[in-house]
Amino acid sequence: MTLSTVAAQSADQEIPYYDSVGNECAMFEHAYAQRLPLLLKGPTGCGKTRFVSHMAAKLGKPLFTVSCHDDLTAADLTGRYLLQGGETRWVDGPLTRAVREGGICYLDEVVEARKDVTVVLHPLTDDRRLLPLERTGELLEAPDDFMLVASYNPGYQHILKSLKPSTRQRFVAMTFDFPPPKVERDIVARESGLESERCAALVNLAASLRAMKGQDLEEGISTRLLVYCATLIQAGMPIRDAARATLVEPLSDDADVQEGLMEAVQATFG
Amino acid sequence: MTLSTVAAQSADQEIPYYDSVGNECAMFEHAYAQRLPLLLKGPTGCGKTRFVSHMAAKLGKPLFTVSCHDDLTAADLTGRYLLQGGETRWVDGPLTRAVREGGICYLDEVVEARKDVTVVLHPLTDDRRLLPLERTGELLEAPDDFMLVASYNPGYQHILKSLKPSTRQRFVAMTFDFPPPKVERDIVARESGLESERCAALVNLAASLRAMKGQDLEEGISTRLLVYCATLIQAGMPIRDAARATLVEPLSDDADVQEGLMEAVQATFG
Amino acid sequence: MTLSTVAAQSADQEIPYYDSVGNECAMFEHAYAQRLPLLLKGPTGCGKTRFVSHMAAKLGKPLFTVSCHDDLTAADLTGRYLLQGGETRWVDGPLTRAVREGGICYLDEVVEARKDVTVVLHPLTDDRRLLPLERTGELLEAPDDFMLVASYNPGYQHILKSLKPSTRQRFVAMTFDFPPPKVERDIVARESGLESERCAALVNLAASLRAMKGQDLEEGISTRLLVYCATLIQAGMPIRDAARATLVEPLSDDADVQEGLMEAVQATFG
Amino acid sequence: MTLSTVAAQSADQEIPYYDSVGNECAMFEHAYAQRLPLLLKGPTGCGKTRFVSHMAAKLGKPLFTVSCHDDLTAADLTGRYLLQGGETRWVDGPLTRAVREGGICYLDEVVEARKDVTVVLHPLTDDRRLLPLERTGELLEAPDDFMLVASYNPGYQHILKSLKPSTRQRFVAMTFDFPPPKVERDIVARESGLESERCAALVNLAASLRAMKGQDLEEGISTRLLVYCATLIQAGMPIRDAARATLVEPLSDDADVQEGLMEAVQATFG
Amino acid sequence: MTLSTVAAQSADQEIPYYDSVGNECAMFEHAYAQRLPLLLKGPTGCGKTRFVSHMAAKLGKPLFTVSCHDDLTAADLTGRYLLQGGETRWVDGPLTRAVREGGICYLDEVVEARKDVTVVLHPLTDDRRLLPLERTGELLEAPDDFMLVASYNPGYQHILKSLKPSTRQRFVAMTFDFPPPKVERDIVARESGLESERCAALVNLAASLRAMKGQDLEEGISTRLLVYCATLIQAGMPIRDAARATLVEPLSDDADVQEGLMEAVQATFG
Amino acid sequence: MTLSTVAAQSADQEIPYYDSVGNECAMFEHAYAQRLPLLLKGPTGCGKTRFVSHMAAKLGKPLFTVSCHDDLTAADLTGRYLLQGGETRWVDGPLTRAVREGGICYLDEVVEARKDVTVVLHPLTDDRRLLPLERTGELLEAPDDFMLVASYNPGYQHILKSLKPSTRQRFVAMTFDFPPPKVERDIVARESGLESERCAALVNLAASLRAMKGQDLEEGISTRLLVYCATLIQAGMPIRDAARATLVEPLSDDADVQEGLMEAVQATFG
Repeated sequence: MTLSTVAAQSADQEIPYYDSVGNECAMFEHAYAQRLPLLLKGPTGCGKTRFVSHMAAKLGKPLFTVSCHDDLTAADLTGRYLLQGGETRWVDGPLTRAVREGGICYLDEVVEARKDVTVVLHPLTDDRRLLPLERTGELLEAPDDFMLVASYNPGYQHILKSLKPSTRQRFVAMTFDFPPPKVERDIVARESGLESERCAALVNLAASLRAMKGQDLEEGISTRLLVYCATLIQAGMPIRDAARATLVEPLSDDADVQEGLMEAVQATFG
Repeated sequence: MTLSTVAAQSADQEIPYYDSVGNECAMFEHAYAQRLPLLLKGPTGCGKTRFVSHMAAKLGKPLFTVSCHDDLTAADLTGRYLLQGGETRWVDGPLTRAVREGGICYLDEVVEARKDVTVVLHPLTDDRRLLPLERTGELLEAPDDFMLVASYNPGYQHILKSLKPSTRQRFVAMTFDFPPPKVERDIVARESGLESERCAALVNLAASLRAMKGQDLEEGISTRLLVYCATLIQAGMPIRDAARATLVEPLSDDADVQEGLMEAVQATFG
Repeated sequence: MTLSTVAAQSADQEIPYYDSVGNECAMFEHAYAQRLPLLLKGPTGCGKTRFVSHMAAKLGKPLFTVSCHDDLTAADLTGRYLLQGGETRWVDGPLTRAVREGGICYLDEVVEARKDVTVVLHPLTDDRRLLPLERTGELLEAPDDFMLVASYNPGYQHILKSLKPSTRQRFVAMTFDFPPPKVERDIVARESGLESERCAALVNLAASLRAMKGQDLEEGISTRLLVYCATLIQAGMPIRDAARATLVEPLSDDADVQEGLMEAVQATFG
Repeated sequence: MTLSTVAAQSADQEIPYYDSVGNECAMFEHAYAQRLPLLLKGPTGCGKTRFVSHMAAKLGKPLFTVSCHDDLTAADLTGRYLLQGGETRWVDGPLTRAVREGGICYLDEVVEARKDVTVVLHPLTDDRRLLPLERTGELLEAPDDFMLVASYNPGYQHILKSLKPSTRQRFVAMTFDFPPPKVERDIVARESGLESERCAALVNLAASLRAMKGQDLEEGISTRLLVYCATLIQAGMPIRDAARATLVEPLSDDADVQEGLMEAVQATFG
Repeated sequence: MTLSTVAAQSADQEIPYYDSVGNECAMFEHAYAQRLPLLLKGPTGCGKTRFVSHMAAKLGKPLFTVSCHDDLTAADLTGRYLLQGGETRWVDGPLTRAVREGGICYLDEVVEARKDVTVVLHPLTDDRRLLPLERTGELLEAPDDFMLVASYNPGYQHILKSLKPSTRQRFVAMTFDFPPPKVERDIVARESGLESERCAALVNLAASLRAMKGQDLEEGISTRLLVYCATLIQAGMPIRDAARATLVEPLSDDADVQEGLMEAVQATFG
Repeated sequence: MTLSTVAAQSADQEIPYYDSVGNECAMFEHAYAQRLPLLLKGPTGCGKTRFVSHMAAKLGKPLFTVSCHDDLTAADLTGRYLLQGGETRWVDGPLTRAVREGGICYLDEVVEARKDVTVVLHPLTDDRRLLPLERTGELLEAPDDFMLVASYNPGYQHILKSLKPSTRQRFVAMTFDFPPPKVERDIVARESGLESERCAALVNLAASLRAMKGQDLEEGISTRLLVYCATLIQAGMPIRDAARATLVEPLSDDADVQEGLMEAVQATFG
C-alpha cells in the first residue's frame, strides 16, 4: 500500500470519533475556509492528533502527518532525488504532496524540526501560499483545499528550541487541554470497551494524578494512557497492576513519586 | 509552473498594494538607481516583505525572495550541480538568477544564514558587483537592473548571530516600524474585507497590545495577525473567539499574559 | 546465515530459560494481545533482554533486537537504499522487517538513539500502528502479531538524554530489578554448571556488593557477572581470582573501592 | 565570461584609483619582488581591497580574490573534482589558478577561514613556495610572479579565531587605517561625483562619528559608507535622509546611539 | 601482503616473548576456553598489547588489532561497501574477519571509540555471541575460537568518555601494571641487546621516575621507552643524551620537570 | 611535476644548508638507524622543518611533509579512492608513499591533526612498524629506510589538544630552540645576502625582542622573520620600515606592544 493510496482512502474514510469540547471544530473550519494556517498548542496526548484526523475526514480531505524531530529538515518535507537505475528520480515529501494534491499537512511538534523548515513554511503561510522547490525548479501554488496545521507542547519547550515570533505570527492558534470529565469518560469507554462507570472512576483518578503535575511530574497523564489502562482492565488484568503499568510507570522513575501515584490509585480503587 | 515563469510574471504583475508612510519608496528608488544594496530593519510582520514586492512590481523587475535560516548556505543562493541521467546539470540558485536575468534578490532575515554567504555578498556589494561561481568557473557581473535587498529584525537577535560590521557597512539601511493607525486600518480593511470602522477598533487594540511588548511579549502584534483577525470576524466568527485565536494565542503561551491580553480585547470590544 | 533465517528459527527455537518473579509474563502477554507497546525499565544485566527472548520464543514470534546508541538513526531501524550493480536496492531495517513479517522488535536502551527515531515510533504506537517509509513511498500497517518493546536504565540517564513525555506516554511500562535470591541462585547454577550451594554464596555476596551502590559504585553487580564468576570457578579458577576478575575489576578502577569489594569477597569465601 | 577571461583582463585593466598615504605601495612592490607574502591589517572599509586591486593592476598581474568565511576550506582554495558525463574533472580553485598562471591571490579576512587552509598556506609561504595538490598528485612550484596577500581586521577578532603565530610569522605585515582627511575627501568626491567641499564636510563628520567607536559602536564608519552618502546626496536625496541611511542606520540598531549619531549629523549640516 | 595473509601467519608465528608476572596467562586461557570477553586495564606501555600478541600466538590464533580513536565507528569494525568497477563490494572490517575466520579481536583503548560500537559489542558479549551485519543482512554467530579483548587506561580517562556500566559489565577484567624489576630488566635486555647490568640500572631509574607520577607527570615512563633508551645506548649514544631523548623529553615539556627528571638520571648514572 | 618526481629528486637534491647547534644530527641518525620515530619540540620558525629537510637530503632519502591541521584525518595521510572514468582508483597519501617507497614522513604540528591519525601512527611506531590500509585490505610493513618524524610547539598548545601519553611515549624526543647568535647571524646572512655585520645587529635585536615573550608576545620572533627583514633591507628598504613590517607588525596588533617593539628597534638602529 503506497502513501498515495492511504491518503486517498483517508479522504473518504470513516470519520474518526472526536467529541468537541469548545469551538475548536468551528475554528478549524473557518481557518480552512479562509486558507489560514492553524497552530494547536497543548499537552501530550490530549487529543490534538485525533482532532486533526477527525477534521480531515469530516472535510473529506487526505491527511499527511509528520512527527517532527531534531533532525527533520526541509528536504524531509519537500522531497528529494533518489538514484534508481542510474537515473535520479524526484520523490515528493509529505508537504509537497499535500500542496500538489490538495489536503491537510499536519506537522506534529513543529518546534522540534530544524530551522530550515522555515524556508518552506514562510512562503506557504503568506498570502502568496507558495511552495518553492529549489531542487526541481518548481514553484507550487497551494490550491484552495490545502491547509497547514502545526502543533506544539508549550509545557515542554527545549531551552534551545522555540518557535520564532516571525514564524508563530503566521498562524491562527488554539490551546488544547485534556477533555472535560464526561467527554473523557466517553472516549475511554469507547476506545477500551470498558463499562462507562469504571471509566468514570479512571477519569477521576486522572484528575487527581494531573493535579500532581509541576511538583513531581513533567506532564499530566494523557487520555491515551487512560485508554491503555481501561483496555488492560477490560482484558482481565487486576486493576492495580493495570494502573501501575499505565498510569504510574510511564510517568516517573522515582520510587517516591511512584508511591504517591499508587496511593492515589489505592484511594480510588481500594 | 517553473520559478522562471513566476519571476517573469512577477515583473509585469499587478502592483501589490502598499501605503507609503515615509520616504521609504524614494530611498528604495535611489538605491536602485545608484546600484546600492539596501538593508531593511524592523519587527516581524510590519510590512517589509510587502514593501519589497511593491517596489519590485513598481520598477517592473522580477523578485527572487529567500527566507534565510540556520542552514542556508552560499550554494543555496548561487546554485549547485544536480545529477540527472548520469550527467551533472548546473541549476542556478535564486541569487544567480537575479544576477543573470536582472531583478531584485531579497534575503529575508539575512542574519539567520550561514557565514559562507558573505563570500557571495561581499563582491556583489562592492563597486565591482561581481558574483563568482567557483563551481562553474564563471564570474558574473551584475547588470544595472540587479539589486540586492536584505532584511533583519534588530529586536530579535540571536546571541551567536549578528551581521558582521564588514557586511553591514556594505548596505544603505532603513528602519521599518508598524504603519501609523490610519494606514494600518486601510491595509486591514483592504485585505480582510471587513468594514473600515471595525478595522480601526482592531488597530486601536493592536496599539495597546503592542505597548505590552518588552514586559511580557517578545514581539508586538503584527499587521498580518490583525488581517487574520479581521478575516475571521468578517467570515462570521465571534469577535472574542477571533481575537483570542489571532491576537492572543499566537503571542504567548503564558496563562497570565493571555489573560492580560484578553482584558485589553474585552476593554475594546466589550 | 541471514537475518531472515535466524529470525524464522527464532520463532520456533527452544524457549530460553527465564524464571518469572512477578506478573511480568502476564503483563507482556496482555500487552501483546492488546497490541500495546511495552517499556521495560531496570538496571544493567538484570535480565530484561533474556525476558524478551523468553517471551518471543514462548509466543512463537521472531525477535529483532537493536542495541541503541548515540548515532542510531531512524534509517538504521527502517532501512536504506544500497547501490549494487548500478542499481539501488532497498534493504529493510530490523523494525521494518518486524512490521512486514510480524514479530517483536526490541529496542534496547532506547534513550540512547537519536531523536529522529520518534518519527517512526510515534505512528507505530498510535492506534493507527503505521510505519511510514518515506524513501520507498510505502506506509506499512503493522499486523496483529507485531509488538514493539523498548528498554532503558533509569539509574543511568545522560544529562542530555531522556525519553520525551510525548514518547514515554505511548508505552505500557514495567520496572525490573535483580531477581530474588533463590531465583538468581537457580539462574547462576543453570548457566554456569556450578553447584547450587556455591551459587547461593555468590548471590549473597552480590547482595552485599549491591548495597554499596550509590556510594562508590555507579551500578550494582549484574546477574551476568555472577554467571561469569561461577563459570570461572566451575572451570577451576581459584575463587578469589575469579571474584576479582568478574565482581571487582569490572565495577571500579578505584583502588580503595576495589579493596572494599575484595573485603566483602573475603568475608564470604574466607 | 569565465574567471580566466576576467583575470586576464584584470592584468591589463585600467588601474583602479588609489591614493597612497604612506609607504604601502613601496612595501607591496618590495614584497612582490622578494617573493614574500604580505599581510594587511586594518578596519572594515578602509581601502585594503582597493589597495590590492590597485597594486595588481599596477604590476600588470591578474588578481584572484577570496572572501574568507567560517566554512571556507582548503579545497575551496585549491580546487576539487566535479562529476561530469560520468567522468570526474578537476577544477582549479582560485589559489591554484594564481599559482599555475601567475598573479596575486588575495585572501580577505583570512582568520575566518577553517584551519585546514594552513596546510596549503605553509608550504607556499616557505622558501620552497610549493602548493601540494594531494587529490591530483601534483606539487606546484609557484612562479616568480605569484604573490600571496591576506588581510584581517584586528579590531574584530572572534574569541575562537585568531591567526596562529606559526602562520602569522610567515608574512610581512602592515597596518592600514582610514585615509587622512584630504585623501579621503578626494576619494569620496571621485567615487560619488559630489563637489569637493561637501565631501570635506562629510569627511569631518566621519571623524566625529569615528571618535564614538569603542563606546557605542563596534566599528568606525567606513570610507565606503561616506561614498554611499555622497552618492545619494549627489543623486538629489536630502542630506539628513542620506546621512541617516548611510552613516547612522548601518552602524547601530540602538535608538539612543542613533540619536547621538544624528546629533553629530545635525551639528555638521544644520 | 594482504591482511588475511598476515593474520594467517600470525596464527603460526613464533610466539612473541612475554614474561608472566601473575595469573594473567591463566586468566586469558580460562576466558578464552569459557568464551568470555576480556578487558585489560592499565597504563600506557606496560605490556598489554604484547601480552595479547603472546597469548594469540600461544593459542595459535590469528590476531586482529584495532587502535580505537575519537572517530572510530561500528562500520570501521564490521566493514563497509566499496564502489569498484561500478559495482559495490563488501569488505569485512577486522572484527567481522575475526568472527568469520575465528581468532582474537583486540580493541586497544576501547573508550576512545564512538558510541555506536556498542551496537556490535553487546550482542557479541551476550551468551548469544552474535554479530549482526545490518548492511549485508547477515547475522554471524561467533565460532568457539573467537575471542574479544579490549583495553583501556583508567589513569587517563576523558571527561566525556568512559565505558558505560552496561558495556563494562559484559567483560571479565584484569588490571595490568609495569612488570616487576627483574622481569622488566630481562625485557629491556632482550629487546635492546644491552647487557643485563646496565638494563637493571635503567629499570631502577624508571622506578624513581615513575614515583614522580601524579605530581608533575601525567603518566609513568613506559617499558617501551626504557627499551628505546637501552637501544640508543647500545648503539653508542652517550647515556645522558639517550636518557634525555627517551626518558625526559617524551614525558614533559616543562623545563622544571625536565630538570628534576635529569637530576634522577644524573643520580643513577653520574 | 608530480609528487613522485619531486620526492625522487628530493632524495638526490643539494643538501639544504643547516648549521648544527648540538647533537641533533647525531640523534636523528641514531633514530634513523635504530628505526625509532622522532619527535621535535620547539617554537615557531626555529628551524625544525629546515633541519628535517637537511637530514633527509644528507641521508639521501625522499621527504614527505604534511602540515597538520584541525581537519586532517587518517585518510589524508594514508590515501583514498577517487572516482575516475566510472572506476575507483586508490591514491596513496604521503604517509603511505613514504612506507611503500621508503623515505621520511614529517608530520608538522602533529597535535593539530584529528584523533584518528593515532590509528595509523600506533602500529607504525610499534616494533611491528606496520601500516594497515583498511580500505584496500593491505597491511604494509615499513622498510628499514622508512622513518617517521613529527613536531609540535609546546609553547602553543590548544586547551583541547595535546598529544596523548600513549602516543607521546612512542617517540624519541628532542627540544629545539632558536640558534645561538653566531649561527643565526650566518643563517640570516646566507639567506638574505645582507652583509654579516648588519645581520649580527638584527640577531641582537631579535634577542631583546624575544626577551619580551610571555609578557606581551605569544611567541618570540622567528629566524624566518629575521631573514625577511634582512631581505627587505638588502633590497633597499629603510631599516625602520623593514623592521616594522617584519619584526613588529607580524608579532602583535596591540599599539602599546608595537611601540615597545619599535623602541627596541630604535635602540639598535638609531
